[in-house]
Amino acid sequence: MPLWPIHRQNRIKRLILSTYQAASGAGAAAMEELVESTRASLAGRAYQRTVLPHPYAFNVFNHDTRIDPETGYNEEETKVIKETRKIFEDDRIAVGVTCVRVPVLRGHCQAITFECEKPITEQEVGTILSEAPGVKIIDDRVKNYFPMPIDASGQDDVLVGRIRKDLSDPSGHSISMFVAADQLLKGAALNAIQIAELLPERAMA
Amino acid sequence: MPLWPIHRQNRIKRLILSTYQAASGAGAAAMEELVESTRASLAGRAYQRTVLPHPYAFNVFNHDTRIDPETGYNEEETKVIKETRKIFEDDRIAVGVTCVRVPVLRGHCQAITFECEKPITEQEVGTILSEAPGVKIIDDRVKNYFPMPIDASGQDDVLVGRIRKDLSDPSGHSISMFVAADQLLKGAALNAIQIAELLPERAMA
Repeated sequence: MPLWPIHRQNRIKRLILSTYQAASGAGAAAMEELVESTRASLAGRAYQRTVLPHPYAFNVFNHDTRIDPETGYNEEETKVIKETRKIFEDDRIAVGVTCVRVPVLRGHCQAITFECEKPITEQEVGTILSEAPGVKIIDDRVKNYFPMPIDASGQDDVLVGRIRKDLSDPSGHSISMFVAADQLLKGAALNAIQIAELLPERAMA
Repeated sequence: MPLWPIHRQNRIKRLILSTYQAASGAGAAAMEELVESTRASLAGRAYQRTVLPHPYAFNVFNHDTRIDPETGYNEEETKVIKETRKIFEDDRIAVGVTCVRVPVLRGHCQAITFECEKPITEQEVGTILSEAPGVKIIDDRVKNYFPMPIDASGQDDVLVGRIRKDLSDPSGHSISMFVAADQLLKGAALNAIQIAELLPERAMA
């Protein structure tokens, strides 16, 4: 969502992202499994998991959807690629993605690096995002305060921060940033409304 | 470490990585803070943190080292860039990095995407890594079994999996993979030994 207003002004050609996904995306039972397995771990008790394929307490694992044995990508990653192209109305956008579950109850994060067609600065991205609907910039380098799941949880806005030059692209076409959002709210419903709100503007563009 | 044997055969030009770093990297007090704050969270009690700058229980935050206010990169990220160039003996390698703490007690993970000078396939990477000292491949697409902190914890080997074509680079020069390692062991000491073991071979190369 924070990429769309950037893409409108300076086409995003390539996108590489890694996710830090919460239990909530897998449903209430997964959230309970995280709570109960963590409780068991702290008490030194064994825990018999029933929802997720791997131990969740104090652990990280790749997304629990099916992996395509040919490509090595899981269904969540394939969905990210497809939906990005659909929302951007751009089949050419090149997307590389790694979806990972972290032991967080609610609130997804993403570390994003994107490359634009024309050069772009972190100041330009900051200006675009500060005017974007549904986006809140949290980017305090002095206090080391950036988007976190606990702050995104229960919020409508997508939190964006750590907006900075991607040092792996000296050409100045690439930016990295870190995003947190409450996927319980940023799911199909709210997204659909916000995209619909943009439609007249897009139709005029 | 798993990149070095690849780099020797096919120079890595560009590297983009996101980390999933455990409490242990910040010391025993940080591990205790994760345990005690999680215990408090599960009991619905408040917790007064003293070690890390953000709530750690069921949360994710950007690395707690100082941020350079000019570049927006934290010291951990700057260290990753410098050490990669030093170990690779290659100042030209372009590195983009995001360092993040996750609520894991022990065992760092990294989602890595790298671009080589010549085309490279996931099969070639698999072959190189299967012969690399200190690297163990865990890459089971059918069982969705890949490197996890709980498996890396207490191991000498760096676990590598999810070796696959980076779909954001259609030219076939880029690979993505996921790595887990116990940084308590993979710190300066063991790394120094393993690099030293490679030296005669490197001197002959």
